[in-house]
Parts: sequence; C-alpha cells; structure tokens
Amino acid sequence: MEQRKPRTLSGFMELSPARQVQFDRMVTLLRSAYSLYGFTPLDTPLIESSDVLLAKGGGETEKQIYRFQKGDNDLSLRFDLTVPLAKYVALYYSELTFPFRRFQIGKVYRGERAQRGRFREFYQADIDIIGDGALDIINEAEIPSIIYKVFTSLGLNRFQIRLNNRKILNGLFAVLGLSEQAGDVMRTMDKLDKIGADKVVSLLQEDCGVPSETAMRLIRTLSTDKPLTALEALRGQNTLLDTGLEELGTVVRYMSAFGVPESHFKVDLTIARGLDYYTGTVYETVMLDHPEVGSICSGGRYDNLAGYYTDRVLPGVGISIGLTRLFFVLENQGYLNNSLLTAPADVLIIPMTEDLSPSIALATRLREQGVRTQLYCEQKKFKQKLSYADKLGIPFALFMGEDELAQKLVTIKNLITGVQSSCMEADAMEQIRTYCAQCTQGAPIQDKL
Amino acid sequence: MEQRKPRTLSGFMELSPARQVQFDRMVTLLRSAYSLYGFTPLDTPLIESSDVLLAKGGGETEKQIYRFQKGDNDLSLRFDLTVPLAKYVALYYSELTFPFRRFQIGKVYRGERAQRGRFREFYQADIDIIGDGALDIINEAEIPSIIYKVFTSLGLNRFQIRLNNRKILNGLFAVLGLSEQAGDVMRTMDKLDKIGADKVVSLLQEDCGVPSETAMRLIRTLSTDKPLTALEALRGQNTLLDTGLEELGTVVRYMSAFGVPESHFKVDLTIARGLDYYTGTVYETVMLDHPEVGSICSGGRYDNLAGYYTDRVLPGVGISIGLTRLFFVLENQGYLNNSLLTAPADVLIIPMTEDLSPSIALATRLREQGVRTQLYCEQKKFKQKLSYADKLGIPFALFMGEDELAQKLVTIKNLITGVQSSCMEADAMEQIRTYCAQCTQGAPIQDKL
Repeated sequence: MEQRKPRTLSGFMELSPARQVQFDRMVTLLRSAYSLYGFTPLDTPLIESSDVLLAKGGGETEKQIYRFQKGDNDLSLRFDLTVPLAKYVALYYSELTFPFRRFQIGKVYRGERAQRGRFREFYQADIDIIGDGALDIINEAEIPSIIYKVFTSLGLNRFQIRLNNRKILNGLFAVLGLSEQAGDVMRTMDKLDKIGADKVVSLLQEDCGVPSETAMRLIRTLSTDKPLTALEALRGQNTLLDTGLEELGTVVRYMSAFGVPESHFKVDLTIARGLDYYTGTVYETVMLDHPEVGSICSGGRYDNLAGYYTDRVLPGVGISIGLTRLFFVLENQGYLNNSLLTAPADVLIIPMTEDLSPSIALATRLREQGVRTQLYCEQKKFKQKLSYADKLGIPFALFMGEDELAQKLVTIKNLITGVQSSCMEADAMEQIRTYCAQCTQGAPIQDKL
Repeated sequence: MEQRKPRTLSGFMELSPARQVQFDRMVTLLRSAYSLYGFTPLDTPLIESSDVLLAKGGGETEKQIYRFQKGDNDLSLRFDLTVPLAKYVALYYSELTFPFRRFQIGKVYRGERAQRGRFREFYQADIDIIGDGALDIINEAEIPSIIYKVFTSLGLNRFQIRLNNRKILNGLFAVLGLSEQAGDVMRTMDKLDKIGADKVVSLLQEDCGVPSETAMRLIRTLSTDKPLTALEALRGQNTLLDTGLEELGTVVRYMSAFGVPESHFKVDLTIARGLDYYTGTVYETVMLDHPEVGSICSGGRYDNLAGYYTDRVLPGVGISIGLTRLFFVLENQGYLNNSLLTAPADVLIIPMTEDLSPSIALATRLREQGVRTQLYCEQKKFKQKLSYADKLGIPFALFMGEDELAQKLVTIKNLITGVQSSCMEADAMEQIRTYCAQCTQGAPIQDKL
C-alpha cells in the first residue's frame, strides 16, 4: 500500500490523551457553571450557507473565512458563535422564550496566519442573554459574576474583570468634539500602557487631529485611578454620558450582591472592545500575572443582535472565552493541575488464571459500581502488564489468580505507593473509590501564587 | 440594513433548546459508559489535509467528501472518526501506550443526497481498542458488553446485538468455492429477509454464477436458527473457518461474564458489514421494534488500522453509533423521555422590591448550593413573569418582596402543582433540590414495551 506521512494541519490543536482529559474537565466545569445561571445549551451547524453567515458582510474576518463550493451551494465554516446565534434566534423566534439565555461551546474557524499560540480551529465558550425589544441593565451586572464563577471554579484566581460602558466613551467623545475620529482615538489610546502618555498625545495630534490640550484631558479622564469620580465632574454635559454613568453605577452597585469581590474587578475607561456593535457595558478579563496574554474573556452589551436577519429588535449581552488559546496558555505557563487523575481507568485487572471468566465477572461488578475498569488480557510478561498501568497512570492493579479465587479474595496493588495486599473485593473497591475520588476533586487549574 | 432570510442548511440538524438538553444528556451518559470501560476521550480536528484524510483513497465516500482549497492547501472535512484515529495513532505512536483505548464523540460530514432522516453533518460516537502488533480476542468479547451497557444506560431495552465472524464467512466461501465472488454473494444474501430464499437462489445463480445446489447449501448454513451447530459440521475443512469458529466460540462464551444477557444477543451468520477491512468479529445492533432503522451500532475487528500511514501493524476492534440519526429516530418514534427536566433553570426568582440586592443575594446563595437559578428582572407584568417560567418549564418560582424580607422568609410557588407557601430559605432550597433531583434521574430514552 502506498503510504502517506500522517500529519495534523498547523494551527489545529490536537492533544495527548492526558491533556485531552484536562481539557474536557474544563469544559465540564464550564457547562456546570453556565447551567447554574440558567443558560441552556445550544449546538448549531459548523457549516452555514455563505449568504446567511456573511449577511452582515465586510469586516476583517471575511478574508479569514473557510468558504467553499459543494455542488451548487456556497458554504462557509462559522468563524464565531454569535452570527449562528443571531440566525438561530431570528429563525426560531416564535418558538423561543425571551430573555433567551444560551451557552454554546464549540469549534470555530479562522484562516489566520499560523503562528505559535494562534489557532485556525479553536473552541469558543459563549454565553448570551437575548431580550425581545428590551433587556434590563441587571443582566449586564450579572455577567461579571458568571465570569468570576467560571474562572474560580476552574481554579484560576489571579485574574481581574475590567469594565467599561460604551455610552460613557461615546458621550465623552461628543463632549470633547471627537465623535468622528472616535475609532482612531480609541485605537491610539490602547497603546497607553506600552508607549506612555507623551507618545500617545503626539500620535493623537498627528494621526487623529486631536488638539494637544484635548488629548491630555482625554488621557487624564480615562486613565485616572478613580474613573467614576473623575466622570462625575462631567455629569450633565451629555445625555449619553449621563446614561452611561447611570448604567455603570448600577452594574458596579449590584456586582457585590452577585458575589464578585472587589479584588476581582475594576472600572477601566480605556476598554472599548473592537467590535462596533457594543453599545453599553463592555468586559475584558486579564490574567494578573500574564497581561501579555490579553483578555481571556470579553464581551458586552449590544442593542441589536440580528438586524441583518429580522426587523425585530433583539438587544443582548454576551461574553466569549477563547478556550483553545486559554488552554494553550495554561499549559505553557504550567498552570494545569497535573495532580488530577488523567488515567483512562481507575484500576487494571490482571487475570492470572487460564479461564478469564472470574476476572471478567470482577470487572463487570466493578463497573456496575462506577469504578472505571480495564482488563489486561494481552499475551505479555507480568512486568509488562504492570508497566502498562504505570505508563497510563492507572493507580491500582488487581490480580486474580487461583489462590485469590480459592480464598474469595483479590490482591490489590497501589501503583503509586507500591503497597500490595490481599483483601475482600468490597474493601478493594472502597480503597480504589476513595483514592480516585480524592484525585479528581481538585480544580483543573492551579495559579502560581 | 439589507436583510437575508435566516435558514439552516438542509441535512443539518439544529435542535430546539429542550431537545438539545435531551441530546446532551445522551452524550453525557455515553461518555460515562465509555469511561467505565477504560476508554480515554480524544478530539481531533474536523479539517485535515486531503492527501492525509484520503490516503486510503477510492471508496464510495470520496464523492461525498467536503473538499476545498484554502490558500495553497487542499483540505477536507472528516467523513468518519476512524481515519483521524488512524492518523493520530500513526502520528503519535511513540507517545501512546497499547492497547490504546479511545472514545470520540464528534461531528462528521458527508454530502449525501438530503432526505428526511439522512444528515450531512452528524455525530458519531466511536470507541476503538488498538493493539500494537497483536490484540487479544478477549477485546472482541468485551465490545458487546459495552454496547449493552451504553444502550441500557440510555434507557433503551428493546434491542439485540448481532454477531458474526468474518473468518467464518471467508472460510465458508472457500469451502464452497465462492471466494472470488464473495462480495457479490454477501450483497445478494443481504436480501434474504426481503425477497425470500427462492429469489435469492435465482439471483445467486444469475448474477454471481453460483450453482443452485451450492446456493441452497449456503442459505441453509447461514440462515439456520442454530448457526454454531450447523457450522460444527464443517469443522476441519478450512483453517480459516476453524479459527473463526474458535473465535466466535470464545466471544460468545465470555459474553455472559461480561454481563450481556442471552436475550440481547444472537449469532447471525448473514452479517458481513460492508467495509473490506473487517477481519474477525463483526457487530450490528438492531432495535427489535424498528428493524427498518437498520443497525444503530456497528463495527468489528480489523487487522490493520493504519497501513496507509505506517508499517507498524495495528490491529483493532471498534464500534460506532450514528448519534444524530439515532436521536432523530428516537424523537420520531416518541422514545424520548419527555418527563425529564429540560428547563434551563430549577428556579426563577421574581424580585418584588425596588432594591434588587436581596433577590440577587438569594440567587447567589442558591447557585452556591448548586441550584440552577435565574433572576427575572425585566419590566413586565407579574403574570408575564410567571408565564416566562411556565413556558420554559422552570418548576419553581421564588418571590422576594418587602414582607418576605422583613420576616426573613421566601415565598415559593411550585409551578407544576400551583401550590404556594412561605417558608425558610433552606426549606425552599430543599424542596427545589428534591424535586429537581427526581426530575433528572430517569433515563433519556423510554422504550414502548
């Protein structure tokens, strides 16, 4: 047979079995956390008709789209989970109940230039709350508590949620006469941390035509330590700004009742989020010890989810975690909790009798009790059988020989400690379950504190 | 904004929120069942390089492949989970431990002609056990117990696992001098149930050139009620046949120790499985009340998983469930257990005070205790708020007003029974948890018995 070299495309994450277990554990915890907040799971196709998926058109992403012809159909792979949600909500509007809260964890595709830590196929974990015509501000206050819950339940503690409100920014730009160049100004402001205030002032002057005094006032207002106090001075000058202040105040006020400790959030007026459609609160989440990673969970409030599919006004608020990239970062930073069990089984049964039936029956009983059990029946030397369990990290081996059968016992070996003993089957089972429960109880992420 | 009509491609399943919960519950149970047998989860890319994915070449599936160009790359969407497994095992051979047991539940793509109940995007749920150079027959005996466990844990009971061994078929064909036309003969034999023995004999004569006496002998041997007895008479005439008999005997002998009741399996010598690469035991699983659905779980033993990627001989045994189609059938036959909770939350909190903090704090406490909680804060009439919970099937509403606050109580309404009462928060929580635990405990499938 002619052979091809097996390979996986660059930009596509493919994990080792142990890593996959760690990844899946994170997904399971995410699903539980989202469920606690009343979100329902959704799963939409990875392929959509191009005219539907690209209805909104334009944008940077368009050239990254995986788009192709199949028969007469012009098809595209989804590049995010928001457009498919918009389609879903518009399509099934009459069957849905609003506010509609859904979570979706699924792969999306972007043909970006491949580089380390950038993926062309990656998981996004999204939640959105979609209102019908209106959506109360309280939903915007709830989102940070979900972010907080999600990351702490994963074991991540060294993070901070950063909040802003687009109405404040837009109002402020109006007050300063900068509405037209708002986009360019925000992109320049984004460089503040990297290049410092002086250089930003120059750039604002040169590239955006902002008078130097206005530029300095802008920087003072946005980068102050007490942004809410600074903004109070501007109240009454612009209704949008006032509404934004009101909203941000409400969000911050309710966040503590929602269980977000002050240590884990901060109002940051420099956050704008690239996407044009955010209109209210916007969120970013940074790892305190790894600011270079950028935001690991972002989103915000938008006024109209599905304007390109329906006349119905569907405001919403949502956030997204780039799960594949986050996992890559966690692995690279040594943040994955490798002490949790990643073995495919809790116990390996090694039959020592000609007739395998007693060992098989033992395996069946263990499985019925929820113990993850593998039988090892390959023709190998005894040492190789034990080494199989060792390599996979299976914590226990059970030997079933003629002696054990005659005495109605099993011999159990703890492969971590090396301790071996003969005991009743029920005791062995108890030992396995206790140990494995311990080894799966911790969080999948361990911060370096 | 120019609008496009939202739609989902035909042949792509997209579920309502409640159905999605039912689907996800099945996936969760499948994952648990596979884990009990020592299988580790794997997740491979949906896109592969075409030269890698289609290395095996040819075959019926090739024209169904979603294949496209992106930049300089010739890419294809996976059409099953077996080829990606072969690639994975060949690529990471040195890092894996054999026998390698993996399960994978993921979407695959086949551009078949769209028709009701046929899907172009569908989930497969696969398990495979891959040996390095050799793989003991005991693994083939274990597979039916996994099929049995999987379906019974889903709640399906009216099914039967059918077994055969390809060595028996190939040996028998050799004995009868039919080795060359074996493929055509098996395809004709497949029609036995539909068109009867006489017509099959004619077809075997006309289309396959089988003498009528041989044809009749073949039919007698394959379609007998006691196939193992019938085959015993042929022992000693062909070594392959003898090996097959030996293997099938071993598989059947050990199946009961593996916990498969006799009611749920049958040796059926007419099963061949289309794929050429099966070389030992083959499996099909039929719904007893819906034979028209065909096999809902099939697979078998193969001698060489990855010959087109590596010189290493990697024998294996595996099975696959077409999950999307199965779900479609279950839904259509009314087999889904609709009494299980599909609501996105266990309780809806309806705040009745100006300050929302007490209600928010209550929600936070409930969530900390694992109760799936949603706050309803939209500006609606009281009746509409309750109707929201009703429509979603949320079983409880909690009211938090000034009276409740003053008395440190909550008012709880069971929306199923309509009973409303005021009680301590802890009691309300207990009531919610008890009820919801009941409503999530049954199996997702209910056979009509």
